[in-house]
Amino acid sequence: MVPPAETRQAPLQDDAAGPLGIICGGGSLPLAVAAAASRHGRRVVMFALRGFAGPEVERYPCHWIVLGALGRFFRLLRLEGCRDLVFIGALTRPTFGRFRLGFRLDLATIRRLPRIARAFRGGDDHLLAGIIRLIEDEGFRVLGAHEVAPEILLAEGPLGTRLPSETERGDIARGLELLAATGPFDIGQAAVVAVRHVLAIEAIEGTDRMLERIVTLRQEGRIRVPAGVGVLVKAPKPQQDRRLDLPSIGPETVEAVARAGLAGVAAVAGAVIVAEPQRVAQLAEARGVFVVGVAPAGAGA
Amino acid sequence: MVPPAETRQAPLQDDAAGPLGIICGGGSLPLAVAAAASRHGRRVVMFALRGFAGPEVERYPCHWIVLGALGRFFRLLRLEGCRDLVFIGALTRPTFGRFRLGFRLDLATIRRLPRIARAFRGGDDHLLAGIIRLIEDEGFRVLGAHEVAPEILLAEGPLGTRLPSETERGDIARGLELLAATGPFDIGQAAVVAVRHVLAIEAIEGTDRMLERIVTLRQEGRIRVPAGVGVLVKAPKPQQDRRLDLPSIGPETVEAVARAGLAGVAAVAGAVIVAEPQRVAQLAEARGVFVVGVAPAGAGA
Repeated sequence: MVPPAETRQAPLQDDAAGPLGIICGGGSLPLAVAAAASRHGRRVVMFALRGFAGPEVERYPCHWIVLGALGRFFRLLRLEGCRDLVFIGALTRPTFGRFRLGFRLDLATIRRLPRIARAFRGGDDHLLAGIIRLIEDEGFRVLGAHEVAPEILLAEGPLGTRLPSETERGDIARGLELLAATGPFDIGQAAVVAVRHVLAIEAIEGTDRMLERIVTLRQEGRIRVPAGVGVLVKAPKPQQDRRLDLPSIGPETVEAVARAGLAGVAAVAGAVIVAEPQRVAQLAEARGVFVVGVAPAGAGA
Repeated sequence: MVPPAETRQAPLQDDAAGPLGIICGGGSLPLAVAAAASRHGRRVVMFALRGFAGPEVERYPCHWIVLGALGRFFRLLRLEGCRDLVFIGALTRPTFGRFRLGFRLDLATIRRLPRIARAFRGGDDHLLAGIIRLIEDEGFRVLGAHEVAPEILLAEGPLGTRLPSETERGDIARGLELLAATGPFDIGQAAVVAVRHVLAIEAIEGTDRMLERIVTLRQEGRIRVPAGVGVLVKAPKPQQDRRLDLPSIGPETVEAVARAGLAGVAAVAGAVIVAEPQRVAQLAEARGVFVVGVAPAGAGA
């Protein structure tokens, strides 16, 4: 379903498919994708998830939707003539209980509850894959944000001027190897490595929490490397469906990396989204950290 | 250097080697090892690490030692006629800075500082291996606590009466596979898995902190499985030198597992130390959690 990487530079503009439906979570990425798709000549309609998306998504034609009202969502998609959909923006994984009890469910949702419950079992990938299948069974096509807006992906090389040192490149390589080893277990997409020593691995707590842990451990003297040493490494899971949940970095990432006393952040080029790249580069300069896109593990030195 | 597993049931009692020197960290394990070695007919001398060992180790002949006074330590060992040494008990990894500045270093230590500094780089295994080599170069023999006191190791099967369910056995298997994958990276020896979903992996924060994270994530509704679901899995690193830093469980582990709302703890039999097994079994009953020794990943079934 996902076009191979080489086609990423030719965003999908098939107007016969109607406008692009952007299902918006939180943060600045939905707007970045909408702007990019518009630049590529594609009309967009925002489907803003209440409780997640910010009001600024209303700069584009916009419907507010809630989890649990699938019937209305599918109706709106057909009304707008959207066949292609993109999921983008921050979403806290809801519990199935919250999903079932916390929202008024419409009939279309209730009918699909057993399937949704099944999707909720297992890791995040499993949940997302289940949701994609559910939507595609209705005749819609779920695209990756990187397919409609390839410019939101981190490119290889530094963002800003600082480059990782040789030691830091060693830490990046070790982090990528570690994430390649943990990838099959459908867990976090990030780790912190300092002088080859793995300080933290992310599971469900998320990258921000993992970096807060580094701050605490450092305050307690349990991290022996001085401030300014160590790298946050981010990579997509090897088997991840890139149409959903690509890892992302943004200005908050740079701030958190600086707060954690790390030298910088490395993420796999072409597989990690950058929110607000200009601000990321400026902030990296200001905080004295590097931000670099790197080749994945095993892609040669 | 380490005898193969089959010889573990025949503790070393070579009296020609003089008394056994037990270098004591914190917790109840040093006393358990001293009691077991004494039962096996071996005299023991405690070398209690100031700041780590508790006063109860003085029940046996005891010298208090400090990090940074290697010369005095080696002199005392020779004075007591100890050729065989065991490291046991909790030790917070000191920073090299704290090691160098926080203790008065004697000449023997200062002479070895470059070597000690090298050992401090890299992961815990690297540090411990460096310390073992340093001691063995002085003509001493470093044994594993499991060699002098095999009864302190977790046996296969339950401690207490509760057994893991089929789902829980699946989670245990997944946790063991994950730890086998992360083992080569010299990181934590524990993970939390619930219905095949990996909730946390331990790096330098330690098992207690990792379990506290589960408590917090649960309070925030970010763990969707109900209380009583999920397993703490502990395993030694595949390449670990078992003479130092075998993972251990004890009454605090059972309390922490119960607080984290998990169903129980599984650890690799023969490779994980149990502190106070009777209290662990009683507490497991009282808290309704299981404690089970299991075969390592890839050992069949």
